[in-house]
Amino acid sequence: MIVVKIGGSKGTDCAVICRDVAARIHAGDRIVVVHGGSHETNVLSEALGHPPRFVTSVSGHESRRTERKTMEFFMMAVAGKLNTLIVETLQGLGVDAVGLSGVDGRLLEGTRKDSIKVIENGKRKVIRDDYTGKVEKVNTALLRLLMDAGYTPVIAPIAISTNHEAINVDGDRAAAMIGAALGADNLVIFSNVPGLLKDIDDPSSLIPQIPKSRLGEFEKYAAGRMKKKLLGSQEALERGLKSVTLCDGRVENPLMRALEGHGTVIS
Amino acid sequence: MIVVKIGGSKGTDCAVICRDVAARIHAGDRIVVVHGGSHETNVLSEALGHPPRFVTSVSGHESRRTERKTMEFFMMAVAGKLNTLIVETLQGLGVDAVGLSGVDGRLLEGTRKDSIKVIENGKRKVIRDDYTGKVEKVNTALLRLLMDAGYTPVIAPIAISTNHEAINVDGDRAAAMIGAALGADNLVIFSNVPGLLKDIDDPSSLIPQIPKSRLGEFEKYAAGRMKKKLLGSQEALERGLKSVTLCDGRVENPLMRALEGHGTVIS
Repeated sequence: MIVVKIGGSKGTDCAVICRDVAARIHAGDRIVVVHGGSHETNVLSEALGHPPRFVTSVSGHESRRTERKTMEFFMMAVAGKLNTLIVETLQGLGVDAVGLSGVDGRLLEGTRKDSIKVIENGKRKVIRDDYTGKVEKVNTALLRLLMDAGYTPVIAPIAISTNHEAINVDGDRAAAMIGAALGADNLVIFSNVPGLLKDIDDPSSLIPQIPKSRLGEFEKYAAGRMKKKLLGSQEALERGLKSVTLCDGRVENPLMRALEGHGTVIS
Repeated sequence: MIVVKIGGSKGTDCAVICRDVAARIHAGDRIVVVHGGSHETNVLSEALGHPPRFVTSVSGHESRRTERKTMEFFMMAVAGKLNTLIVETLQGLGVDAVGLSGVDGRLLEGTRKDSIKVIENGKRKVIRDDYTGKVEKVNTALLRLLMDAGYTPVIAPIAISTNHEAINVDGDRAAAMIGAALGADNLVIFSNVPGLLKDIDDPSSLIPQIPKSRLGEFEKYAAGRMKKKLLGSQEALERGLKSVTLCDGRVENPLMRALEGHGTVIS
């Protein structure tokens, strides 16, 4: 089984990735698709006159400021538009896809952060009305029910809190938790970079292989969203996922390339 | 089994209907929820600077003008926001709801109208780039798979065309097709009127009962969206649905009242 994470940043071509996903499914692989939607949410938020804002936690991770209003924009852009477009594309390629968010059947359950500590203009600040959290539990029974019946799940990164609220969760870490819970062979995370680079401006500085036991040594090369990809990878590998491939979603045959070992393979 | 259609027009209080749906489910009923989203789509379209337009077919039915762009707004407002909010509300009431649109697992399949004949300013006109259609096939296997595992389906009125395109379908008629396909005991259609009225301005002119064999005689009382509710009812009753209740979604305990016989019962 493979979990494929389609990045939500600008430049990701879902259609190209979907073609490869369909080819692998027709060849007999079981695939679960997880997607992002940050760019689409930014565009919608701007258009609705409520520009996106991002906060940086005291531990250095950046996340979207998600008041309830933004949570609803996120539902629209991610669970409404992107998820439906990916399912539609896969259906057109002969894959019987079913779109879900983590609210459906409590597929992804987690704790809503009742307060987040952020750094704003160099000062610490506590935010209490944010709808973000972290996936702690995956309803694998629902995924297996659908897959055993021939459906391919396509999952939007919204979870449900223990208090029954929809929460915005990081797509990469959600994909990692899904991969771990399913005991997947591989988690392939597509984004708009070729993998983990020693020098972000030099694609030839790609790190091809990282043994999972030495992942900590490579954290220094990660900036921005790559930090969460490494964090998610580490969490998932500790919980039983066999390998993670960080790779480029902007090339031809991205999934075939990833499965051939292109990108950064952590195992 | 009961199919409950929650109207998408202004004034419908989903939370109140969901409370009754949850109570019936906890009492042992099987319920499939179908919802609309016309008001929400209007609001979003306005906010995105692309105000909604409606066309009237030569047969007198009004429908949303749905170019591809509007189809994407519809996905956001209906499959993204409303569907997720209803699932979230039901989850909070202890119902293990799963949100789907008809694109998921080809739940609702139909033919996209490759041309629609409309009347505009008194003249006939043909529109060819519309993404609307009519549900012809329901994937009951997917619904039963989920229901047998304890999940309650919540369905957004988007279908997939035989050519794999997402299409906007009428929610009332979709609910009727679902009810017929499942051989449901009752289809309860909530809207912002008490039922079929002889005089639209006089709630006391409610028609309480219509034998299905005489439905044609009552068509003259239907205007606007009520026409589609009657058309959908007729189609569904002909295909094996046992009864349809048209009733008010704006009152306390709307589902309990409907099941007690309030509203217009067609059987």
